[in-house]
Amino acid sequence: MAGTLFVVATPIGNLEDLTFRALRTLREVDLVAAEDTRRTSKLLAHYEIRKPLVSLREHNETRETPRLLDRIEKGEQVALVSDAGTPGIADPGAGLVRAAHERGLKVVPIPGPSAVAAVMSVSG
Amino acid sequence: MAGTLFVVATPIGNLEDLTFRALRTLREVDLVAAEDTRRTSKLLAHYEIRKPLVSLREHNETRETPRLLDRIEKGEQVALVSDAGTPGIADPGAGLVRAAHERGLKVVPIPGPSAVAAVMSVSG
Repeated sequence: MAGTLFVVATPIGNLEDLTFRALRTLREVDLVAAEDTRRTSKLLAHYEIRKPLVSLREHNETRETPRLLDRIEKGEQVALVSDAGTPGIADPGAGLVRAAHERGLKVVPIPGPSAVAAVMSVSG
Repeated sequence: MAGTLFVVATPIGNLEDLTFRALRTLREVDLVAAEDTRRTSKLLAHYEIRKPLVSLREHNETRETPRLLDRIEKGEQVALVSDAGTPGIADPGAGLVRAAHERGLKVVPIPGPSAVAAVMSVSG
């Protein structure tokens, strides 16, 4: 049975801005794909999570995307995190999400803090 | 010294979509103001938080807003939560935030999940 691609929104500035569901997802997956592995490592270390981390950047997304999807097809659970709040809007992760949809794989969003919404909430 | 109005984004559908910072804030304030006290009670109960809850709705916001601001001026910490994700965009809470700004009170946003961002993140 194929695994799932979890699209995990991670904190923008404050490590404490992670949701309980995002933490549980990061704890349960087999693999974490991230644009900024240094920043993601810091987040995982903060919550004492040890997972294989795959870097997903513009220069390697063409190669890494099919590899990640193959692993999901074989049953692995993968979390995609981004360094810019909710991933998939304008980053290499968008290509992974699109390709996962094309292959008919399950994609589950794990919502997280949005900088836009936070700013709007105090503008009155 | 005056207190602070914390504008806390709360989960839209899943109680687990609360951030660690939002939980800490709800634990630390003296009072929680909410549009939907039934829903907010459920959230507080889930995390075993017991706090006085003030209902803030269209029919009572004219009366409750100055009362809440008086309490903040006297030093109490107040959390404003909404049943629609990040509060303050289009609900009675917006009036409270605006009035707090007008009185020169400190307003601190605690970011949380955004339904909009979550939907965008899986549209690929």
